[in-house]
Amino acid sequence: MKTIYSPTHLRHAGHWEVAGGTLVPGFEKPIRAEYVRSRAEAVGLGPILPPSSFTLDAALRVHAADYVEFLGKAWDMWAATGRHTTALPMTWPVKGLRNDRRPESIDALLGFYSLDAGAGFQAGTWDAIRSSYETALTAATLVKGGERAAFALCRPPGHHAGSAFCGGYCYINNAAVAAQWFLDQGAGRVAVLDVDYHHGNGTQEIFYGRSDVLVVNIHGDPATEYPFFLGYADETGAGAGEGFNLNLPLPWGTDWTDWGAALEAGCRRVADYAPDVVVVSLGVDTFERDPISHFRLTTADYPKIGARIEKLGLPTLFVMEGGYAVEEIGVNAVGVLEGFEGR
Amino acid sequence: MKTIYSPTHLRHAGHWEVAGGTLVPGFEKPIRAEYVRSRAEAVGLGPILPPSSFTLDAALRVHAADYVEFLGKAWDMWAATGRHTTALPMTWPVKGLRNDRRPESIDALLGFYSLDAGAGFQAGTWDAIRSSYETALTAATLVKGGERAAFALCRPPGHHAGSAFCGGYCYINNAAVAAQWFLDQGAGRVAVLDVDYHHGNGTQEIFYGRSDVLVVNIHGDPATEYPFFLGYADETGAGAGEGFNLNLPLPWGTDWTDWGAALEAGCRRVADYAPDVVVVSLGVDTFERDPISHFRLTTADYPKIGARIEKLGLPTLFVMEGGYAVEEIGVNAVGVLEGFEGR
Repeated sequence: MKTIYSPTHLRHAGHWEVAGGTLVPGFEKPIRAEYVRSRAEAVGLGPILPPSSFTLDAALRVHAADYVEFLGKAWDMWAATGRHTTALPMTWPVKGLRNDRRPESIDALLGFYSLDAGAGFQAGTWDAIRSSYETALTAATLVKGGERAAFALCRPPGHHAGSAFCGGYCYINNAAVAAQWFLDQGAGRVAVLDVDYHHGNGTQEIFYGRSDVLVVNIHGDPATEYPFFLGYADETGAGAGEGFNLNLPLPWGTDWTDWGAALEAGCRRVADYAPDVVVVSLGVDTFERDPISHFRLTTADYPKIGARIEKLGLPTLFVMEGGYAVEEIGVNAVGVLEGFEGR
Repeated sequence: MKTIYSPTHLRHAGHWEVAGGTLVPGFEKPIRAEYVRSRAEAVGLGPILPPSSFTLDAALRVHAADYVEFLGKAWDMWAATGRHTTALPMTWPVKGLRNDRRPESIDALLGFYSLDAGAGFQAGTWDAIRSSYETALTAATLVKGGERAAFALCRPPGHHAGSAFCGGYCYINNAAVAAQWFLDQGAGRVAVLDVDYHHGNGTQEIFYGRSDVLVVNIHGDPATEYPFFLGYADETGAGAGEGFNLNLPLPWGTDWTDWGAALEAGCRRVADYAPDVVVVSLGVDTFERDPISHFRLTTADYPKIGARIEKLGLPTLFVMEGGYAVEEIGVNAVGVLEGFEGR
């Protein structure tokens, strides 16, 4: 399996986030992708190739134009105020406030276009976002071109980013971009299977009213787990999208027994949908020693995930999402891909 | 003029807030109220009296019961997780997420019931909130009993707190509580005049659909100033409340010339409304050296504010809100009251 990777992700570094009532260095840090790349090399997964260039057109198919424009200029606006800290929001347009009027100041815009204080900007953040986006599209191009599967080693990740907001370390929703791109390239139906520990709220939000993208999420119960405000089982889609969103929330402490059963249910739904291609939002923060998550998958479980997905018999794009136990992220993420390849 | 004050506010201390991309000690700190009390004593404003006890019934007239319950237990829930940092949220239910389903974990609840990371909880926060609430009601009782005016030296402040959210250093909306209490005690109409630098979004939200409370706000333009997502001039009320909300946003750098003109316009609207009582949300962060604001009022301007409000000829309750240039907050806030008294 070919991996698409760019060192440009390294430019998104040094950012801090709000967690546990304090400010901490971002759990989503550069070494994550390096561990995955290193492991892919070590096991000989396949060629590691750089992304091609893409215009932002594919991003604009799933994100609002003003939002993408904001992503591109957020750091410069912040730096222009003389600050060199991570650009973080501090106020959000919750219920009781307006979200129909775009404010002017950067502090306000950061809140206007986000759901948390967990997707900050540094000087190189936009370059990394754009590179991550191109990584996803390049890998998608391989699958469109006939490869059975490809691995987009995206960083930053994307599945928490909605049509007009960032959050949860995510800015452009790489999986959603790829899913839409497959449709725009002629696919009739695409399935997104999100196995990250956290609910892929952005992907759900983007496709919630549509039947041409099935979204299946297996994740920590939002009643107790980030992103808290989406991901319940009763969210099944709206309008034309009714029945095309499947959430499988699971409680803290879930191990392979129940997680594997949820994967089985998710894969059966994907198979019933009979998509032309499946996009896997690949997070490995389901790992038992992940520092910010609460499932109990072991390293031995990850190849089983890949093997089950392979059984779908579909062209498959793996898009890297979360996973924060950095030393193990490489072994576990690549373990999924090895399992897919039947090693 | 009598001042109601309680040292219980001192228990709300040591909290941090997110600002400028970093975590800083709260600008809203105990010394603020102490400077105001000290100045009131120094100029002999009048007796300084402790608040009486009140049940939470008056709070429940303007706030949701589940929200008030949350305020009372937030710190204990946070501390039960083993954390001793300021209890701060980290994710908010913005558009694209759900706000119809109350989550379970404290991290989620903090976001569910807030608009920012600027109203954190420490061990003594609830005691201070409750004391501040009782301070407002005790001062309101004086006005109801025939005093021309009274000063509720509330801390924490209240005007950013809405029916079901805290934020901007505010938890229970003391001014809104008092306005509703006056109505419940027999007043036919109440006006709230908010002269704090920041828009009183909570007060507006609480009374937006009603004609029995006129809300007038003079404040920094939300396009560039906190709380960013409410406070525009086109917000004039809804339904039965149409025409009973007046916002007078002003740009950075506004000095007495334009600020005084806005006060004149606001007071005329209050006079036209002919309320039985006026509640003044008294913030003095309009001061030229306030560390987080951008107007240019001088110490000499504050008595002019009080004098103009006095000319309304109405029973008047002053409720302390913001003001962060701590050394001057006492002189400026008490200056308004001295101006009211014609000194």
